[in-house]
Amino acid sequence: METQLSSNTQRVSVGPDQPFVVIGERINPTRRKKLMETLAAGDFSIAVEDARSQVAAGATVLDLNAGVPGADEPKLLSGLTKAVMDAIDVPLCFDSANPKALEAALSVYRGKALINSTTGEDKSLDAVLPLAAHYHAAVIGVVSDETGIPATPETRLEVARKIVQRAGHYGVPPEDIIMDCLALPVSADTGAGKVTLDTMQLVQRELGVNLSLGASNVSFGLPDRKLLNVAYLTLGIACGLTAAITDPTVQEIRSTILACDLLMGRDEYAVRWIKAYRANLNAAPKA
Amino acid sequence: METQLSSNTQRVSVGPDQPFVVIGERINPTRRKKLMETLAAGDFSIAVEDARSQVAAGATVLDLNAGVPGADEPKLLSGLTKAVMDAIDVPLCFDSANPKALEAALSVYRGKALINSTTGEDKSLDAVLPLAAHYHAAVIGVVSDETGIPATPETRLEVARKIVQRAGHYGVPPEDIIMDCLALPVSADTGAGKVTLDTMQLVQRELGVNLSLGASNVSFGLPDRKLLNVAYLTLGIACGLTAAITDPTVQEIRSTILACDLLMGRDEYAVRWIKAYRANLNAAPKA
Repeated sequence: METQLSSNTQRVSVGPDQPFVVIGERINPTRRKKLMETLAAGDFSIAVEDARSQVAAGATVLDLNAGVPGADEPKLLSGLTKAVMDAIDVPLCFDSANPKALEAALSVYRGKALINSTTGEDKSLDAVLPLAAHYHAAVIGVVSDETGIPATPETRLEVARKIVQRAGHYGVPPEDIIMDCLALPVSADTGAGKVTLDTMQLVQRELGVNLSLGASNVSFGLPDRKLLNVAYLTLGIACGLTAAITDPTVQEIRSTILACDLLMGRDEYAVRWIKAYRANLNAAPKA
Repeated sequence: METQLSSNTQRVSVGPDQPFVVIGERINPTRRKKLMETLAAGDFSIAVEDARSQVAAGATVLDLNAGVPGADEPKLLSGLTKAVMDAIDVPLCFDSANPKALEAALSVYRGKALINSTTGEDKSLDAVLPLAAHYHAAVIGVVSDETGIPATPETRLEVARKIVQRAGHYGVPPEDIIMDCLALPVSADTGAGKVTLDTMQLVQRELGVNLSLGASNVSFGLPDRKLLNVAYLTLGIACGLTAAITDPTVQEIRSTILACDLLMGRDEYAVRWIKAYRANLNAAPKA
């Protein structure tokens, strides 16, 4: 199953036979003071710079989050959308829990966007899915519901199934749902990482939908998080992950994703692997 | 299913609920000139040093290969076995295509060894499996047969099934077979990596046996092999790999395996992860 996203002129396909899709996560003011301050002032210059650097590093979709406390989020997210659209031509992913902000961004967007996200809660589904249908957008579905995050792969699958069914009710087809099986910290529960990997395999097998993940949660509270995040992304790719919201400007993440594409058979003749290797050689400081 | 190995006093279990088993690969004279020369001279000092350094780096089993061209391999492998056994107390894996060399090593060994390996060829099975039965050893089964290496996961599964069945005929139970699903270079065939991963999942599901791999083959002929090998090992672990013949003295390999153990739920309270992190901090040069 392939999820099609687009910007004004660019198309991106998410799917098991496609290169892994990196949704650049950096345009998010949480824990980024300077970005927070500039966004609050209606200045999108840092965000636009982040857009360019992430695309240069291999992001093919950009996540936009305008969650500045106290700000008018609909106005800010639509302004951010216009600024990024004017600067760079890749599909965008609108990251908000506020349906008004999502609608404001969707209404100015040219192309087929991704919405981040709906949960399996009725309130979320019934607010977000009509927007997806109206604006012909794809949606990230998060496998939590009114009861919280289910403990087992089977119960998470039931939430995933509910999301796909409700989407159908609103006219959003399964190929426009990308499921996030929710990585929780292994520091709090040793089995948490495995439950999510098992959920991914189960959801992929039963529903056939694409899978995304915010992979950095898994390492919360532990030392050497980067290595854990990279390893978890790789384990996830073997379990059906076809996209992730992550930071491609981190060299280890970018190169591991390229390695996985090659090893999973998505880089014919190793063309992208060898090209990236040569680019790194040229970029490396001369000895 | 768990495969039990032992040395004189140490036991190692290979299985999905156990820490990943690293079979240290360094005691192998192929492409190691100095080791080759000393082994040829009946000097085991470098081999013993390799044994110690690999165990210090996390190997819990050691592969012994005494393939020195022109040498008396049975004599050399049994001598090597005795020297390593005297120096360090971990289970050993005897790596030879020569049944006489295997028998010479098995006959002096104290504990339950691993034999590396039998293929699915009748000639190999009927030479190696009686040794495994007689000396109560476990065996690595390699999914190739008289026709070569089958192209698809389904046909490789048939070879794996033949190995398990023939083993049963000789009195070697399935838990004493560790299957190697054979990683081939993706440089020669873009789909080669995926076929092996799919085979691993299939063999694990259908036969339930443990899986090992020599993961470095996959990157043959490509730049930045270390990164590819580490990523492939990680993808393999998600597909059921419970052991690998690899080099734990390579920092990236050792730390990635620890990361995978934690993320797969095999490192309760992250005890080993945090311990290794602290050891690295202490080992790192002071700024």
